[in-house]
Amino acid sequence: MDDLKMFREYREKMNEKILSEKNLNINRFFNLDTRVYKDGYLSSKTKEMLGLVSSMVLRCDDCIKYHLIRCKEEGVIREEFFEIFSVALIVGGSIVIPHLRRAVDFLEELEKKQEKEK
Amino acid sequence: MDDLKMFREYREKMNEKILSEKNLNINRFFNLDTRVYKDGYLSSKTKEMLGLVSSMVLRCDDCIKYHLIRCKEEGVIREEFFEIFSVALIVGGSIVIPHLRRAVDFLEELEKKQEKEK
Amino acid sequence: MDDLKMFREYREKMNEKILSEKNLNINRFFNLDTRVYKDGYLSSKTKEMLGLVSSMVLRCDDCIKYHLIRCKEEGVIREEFFEIFSVALIVGGSIVIPHLRRAVDFLEELEKKQEKEK
Amino acid sequence: MDDLKMFREYREKMNEKILSEKNLNINRFFNLDTRVYKDGYLSSKTKEMLGLVSSMVLRCDDCIKYHLIRCKEEGVIREEFFEIFSVALIVGGSIVIPHLRRAVDFLEELEKKQEKEK
Amino acid sequence: MDDLKMFREYREKMNEKILSEKNLNINRFFNLDTRVYKDGYLSSKTKEMLGLVSSMVLRCDDCIKYHLIRCKEEGVIREEFFEIFSVALIVGGSIVIPHLRRAVDFLEELEKKQEKEK
Amino acid sequence: MDDLKMFREYREKMNEKILSEKNLNINRFFNLDTRVYKDGYLSSKTKEMLGLVSSMVLRCDDCIKYHLIRCKEEGVIREEFFEIFSVALIVGGSIVIPHLRRAVDFLEELEKKQEKEK
Repeated sequence: MDDLKMFREYREKMNEKILSEKNLNINRFFNLDTRVYKDGYLSSKTKEMLGLVSSMVLRCDDCIKYHLIRCKEEGVIREEFFEIFSVALIVGGSIVIPHLRRAVDFLEELEKKQEKEK
Repeated sequence: MDDLKMFREYREKMNEKILSEKNLNINRFFNLDTRVYKDGYLSSKTKEMLGLVSSMVLRCDDCIKYHLIRCKEEGVIREEFFEIFSVALIVGGSIVIPHLRRAVDFLEELEKKQEKEK
Repeated sequence: MDDLKMFREYREKMNEKILSEKNLNINRFFNLDTRVYKDGYLSSKTKEMLGLVSSMVLRCDDCIKYHLIRCKEEGVIREEFFEIFSVALIVGGSIVIPHLRRAVDFLEELEKKQEKEK
Repeated sequence: MDDLKMFREYREKMNEKILSEKNLNINRFFNLDTRVYKDGYLSSKTKEMLGLVSSMVLRCDDCIKYHLIRCKEEGVIREEFFEIFSVALIVGGSIVIPHLRRAVDFLEELEKKQEKEK
Repeated sequence: MDDLKMFREYREKMNEKILSEKNLNINRFFNLDTRVYKDGYLSSKTKEMLGLVSSMVLRCDDCIKYHLIRCKEEGVIREEFFEIFSVALIVGGSIVIPHLRRAVDFLEELEKKQEKEK
Repeated sequence: MDDLKMFREYREKMNEKILSEKNLNINRFFNLDTRVYKDGYLSSKTKEMLGLVSSMVLRCDDCIKYHLIRCKEEGVIREEFFEIFSVALIVGGSIVIPHLRRAVDFLEELEKKQEKEK
């Protein structure tokens, strides 16, 4: 039911397992995957939007969820999300639509959670 | 259990939400996505078969389901479906097989439903 | 300059080399790749159109060229080609456009050749 | 709960349905899909590792599961699996990570089952 | 030699041919493909960066070139380009590298042209 | 004409330009991309074969060329190459064939070069 919580717990649990294996190249990649979205010449917000649109055109639901969470934390608003979605849709085509449906669903879950926390 | 009903309801519910956001470009894309399968020089049946094979080689289960429903409505018969599947399989390779399994499963659900309605 | 001739000669030369290696699985696959487009419940024309749209959404220029040639041989007319292109474009998105440009270019070469042969 | 058993049963049930349809090209493809991993100049173990890495960069969970099972049967050890994962990750990028999580999860299920059977 | 000029001329020539065919759905798609990058809640600059990163992870050289030109017109600077490239590289993996090479090559051509025009 | 030399020179020239930009994340990724193919639990030869098959199913000609060179250096023989090709073909489908043609072409260039050097 609480898709957001399940997503986060599974992600955390499995990341821990993967990193504890101590395969140096995998761990370095994970490290790089965190660093690349940090503020630089482009803001972290912009980079997370880049991550989101990439995940949508490559059609990876879990990656989309992760970047939706991060974009929301960086202050992306609903109207901006739909403009990112529109770019993903035109670039990637109708094959993106099922992922768009799930993205909008997950976004509304994030919005509800934010409402409650106020 | 009733995969067909769940698929349709979720699809409808989320499409409504997406369209009610009134992002003009997204709504225009959805409109275009309907129009492109209409009868023209090629029949709607042929175009739906084109949509099905495209969905299979791009490996999108929800898109496959949608075009299976539409192809069935347009009168595509079981033997024709398997010939479409064979083209998708040769073009797209063994990576298509898991989607083929789910496609055949869903097709049989569609066939059973049709039987009942007779 | 004569893109069509170059395409055909390279294709033939390399296919011959590949088949003469006598790797049984590769040769069987090539055989299957020919058989799957033969007349069955669906006509060879329909199957070639399925092959064309698949090649477009998967964005493979050589595969597109091959199926353009075969579709033309099966009697697909210009208006039908553009309807196949429109399905590929909506399904696959703007990322298909560069391949669409080259497809239209190659199609016109095929049409000119046909004119001359009359 | 028993993901491994469910995976195997569904796979078997649907493969049977597909093959019993007697579409010659599909059946030949399935046959080829088995033969290509047999011992040759390269061992079956090496070929299954090739199948696994291909499934990971193409991001197909069911294909990954199948090759994890087969690689395990061929004697691939945990440290080797993580090196295959590392190649898939670098070649395919962070978009592979969600599939990596599920692969490690499934691998541990396979390892537990093996423990019990001892 | 002048890759930029060739790219632009071919693109323009073929777009004209495609649009003059008057396939309504294709023409509407092309129209949509222009509109989606216009200023909205997100600036045109941000949207062009979204288009660029999408083109890179989907590995389409012509799309990359187009968005490099547009991003440059919108004022994206070299350091920002390399941060977009870094996101594309981590998300899409080493398979993106050959496209990155050509992107950097084309970017330098754009920079030289800009120098001359001053 | 000397495809091998051109490939190597362009690759080297552009890699140098990219690395000299000193974008830390890009440079770390390039470093990781070298390290991941080093001997470990799996030999460098096996890992290069994994890299080759991945490049083929993802259909990246430059990546294929690079791994063909490296596999050849690691002692992969012609018969083994064709077995790797057969796995790529079955997994990735007929869409791989144009890349297979170019791979065989490039492999023969590598073999001729080796002959001369004897």
